Amino acid sequence: YRTKKLGLSFVALDPDPHCGAASLVEELLVGSLHDEAKLRELAGKVDVLTYDIEHVGVETLSRLESEGVKVFPSPRILAVLQDKAKQKNLYVQHGLPVAPFVQKKASELTEADLPIVQKSRKGGYDGRGVAVLRSLDQKQFLTGDTFFEEYIPFERELAVMVARGQEGQTVVYPVVEMLFDPELNICDEVLAPARVSPELAQRASTLALEAVRAVEGVGVFGVELFLTREGKLLVNEMAPRPHNSGHYTMESCRVCQFENHLRAVCGLPLAEPGFFTPAVMANLLGSGSGKTVVKGLEQALALEGFSLHLYGKDQCRPGRKMGHFTIIAATSEEALETCRRVKQYLKVTGA
Amino acid sequence: YRTKKLGLSFVALDPDPHCGAASLVEELLVGSLHDEAKLRELAGKVDVLTYDIEHVGVETLSRLESEGVKVFPSPRILAVLQDKAKQKNLYVQHGLPVAPFVQKKASELTEADLPIVQKSRKGGYDGRGVAVLRSLDQKQFLTGDTFFEEYIPFERELAVMVARGQEGQTVVYPVVEMLFDPELNICDEVLAPARVSPELAQRASTLALEAVRAVEGVGVFGVELFLTREGKLLVNEMAPRPHNSGHYTMESCRVCQFENHLRAVCGLPLAEPGFFTPAVMANLLGSGSGKTVVKGLEQALALEGFSLHLYGKDQCRPGRKMGHFTIIAATSEEALETCRRVKQYLKVTGA
Repeated sequence: YRTKKLGLSFVALDPDPHCGAASLVEELLVGSLHDEAKLRELAGKVDVLTYDIEHVGVETLSRLESEGVKVFPSPRILAVLQDKAKQKNLYVQHGLPVAPFVQKKASELTEADLPIVQKSRKGGYDGRGVAVLRSLDQKQFLTGDTFFEEYIPFERELAVMVARGQEGQTVVYPVVEMLFDPELNICDEVLAPARVSPELAQRASTLALEAVRAVEGVGVFGVELFLTREGKLLVNEMAPRPHNSGHYTMESCRVCQFENHLRAVCGLPLAEPGFFTPAVMANLLGSGSGKTVVKGLEQALALEGFSLHLYGKDQCRPGRKMGHFTIIAATSEEALETCRRVKQYLKVTGA
Repeated sequence: YRTKKLGLSFVALDPDPHCGAASLVEELLVGSLHDEAKLRELAGKVDVLTYDIEHVGVETLSRLESEGVKVFPSPRILAVLQDKAKQKNLYVQHGLPVAPFVQKKASELTEADLPIVQKSRKGGYDGRGVAVLRSLDQKQFLTGDTFFEEYIPFERELAVMVARGQEGQTVVYPVVEMLFDPELNICDEVLAPARVSPELAQRASTLALEAVRAVEGVGVFGVELFLTREGKLLVNEMAPRPHNSGHYTMESCRVCQFENHLRAVCGLPLAEPGFFTPAVMANLLGSGSGKTVVKGLEQALALEGFSLHLYGKDQCRPGRKMGHFTIIAATSEEALETCRRVKQYLKVTGA
């Protein structure tokens, strides 16, 4: 029995005994997130179950929920969000704007449909499971269970963290802007706040709230939005958990996304974010293979407004998320400039 | 091998296998802080040794240091600070203002010496080891190795956290004000910043810096000062570690006392505190005996600007430090008002 911030104690299930949570929990169960026995063992040890990744045994979680175990966000929501086609259908049913489905099979596509976006229904992550097709060359197509949607050129990709409590109360974090590594197609920088007008930020907040209300989610949700060149906002997708686009909240908000997630799933009062400074979060993607080595750390730590989070991954691989850093500054533009300078010398690589 | 914030990993030694650090370190050694074998085992596992309490085997640490182990702050300093008479002598030697010694034995005191302050040279903590004597009744006197100093009525008790690096570079946190529980003689509230003029705050910062430079300390130091009724500042004592009077830095500074302590002892660049909001920290002292129970938590968590830290102590005892909470607000006075309201319902007690 141990208590920490909020007076909570934690038990985690992870396949890796050296996972990031290992040194932070009272007890670590090692096993697959799809192993019913392990999930039941975990459920037997805690008052409430939550998850930090979508790829978890949702059928078992549903059974546990039907047996009276508290699971937040509800596995019912997770089952919908795990399947990008179902997820998109839900937004459509609730009248939320999305990039429209193209109801065709791969073999039915013509040149007139190009460019077109193909998405895997399940299992996508960090740019995997999404392809922008510019030719009918089948070798470029994703395999497995996929669907197509219209390619909509967008100006910016925005994200909003929303926390929703068990009585439907909500708090909304600032609208942020996600910048992507063009080669890896992974979000590598998040600007908080986004470089958009107050009016647009307001519309984005409202849309994110509507999306979370549509799924009746309890917990923290990362809602990703497209801002089209015509100034329209579309819901792209939603993550039912603390999200990479919300990591900046640890440095620039009084109450971070993780705390509000815990408050929500435990039935505690939600807290206003208390955003107090602009920031840029940058993912530290591995730049080599081998035993993890961090270069340039000392120079970075000498910089005012720099904060580091390393995830304790022993092995580095090119493009692997090894950690992130946050720069706070007077404006997100200024933070971005500093961030770009830091990236020139701060590297996570393999020895 | 695990990395966290700053890219560091931790091994701890504590007599209690259920100590607060247990779930935060890579490895916990269980044993006495005075056990040479255990301290040597710990030293063998780390690049640098530091401590979070003064009552630790300083002779062993000195031997380890002479054998080439990095120990910060140096055991040489610790040996001086562990003995309040030696500590006071050091300040006197450096020309720093203190409450003067009264060079008498207990049997030599007369009515004219009263009131007078008696202090245990070693082992004092949280109000233990200090007595204000108002009569010559020997039953009131402290036993053991003690000394006397002039009783100086003071208006406020101030504290300043100072971080000093291995090349002598320093950063100073804001001057705070310590309020004491009159019955337990334990600091129970800390106001950041102190309710003093900018000129006085400047003098207090300078004095705290001089005291830390006098001991040539590397790490974070909590310097306690008296502000006399005549507006004079005196050095009371110094703790060679993160200090209760610096806990507020977790909520109201960009870089907290713990991070700067780690930066200093690891030879990393120090960071400016980045104080951004007034705050009050209040200790949660146990109000009953038995298995720890927290009352009023939900109400407190609903309050904007409230943050909680519980230390995970299984057993509650009256007056035991069970945790602390911090209130941030526009001014420290406002935070203090809120703090007092919270104390009416937030209680840690025993079941």
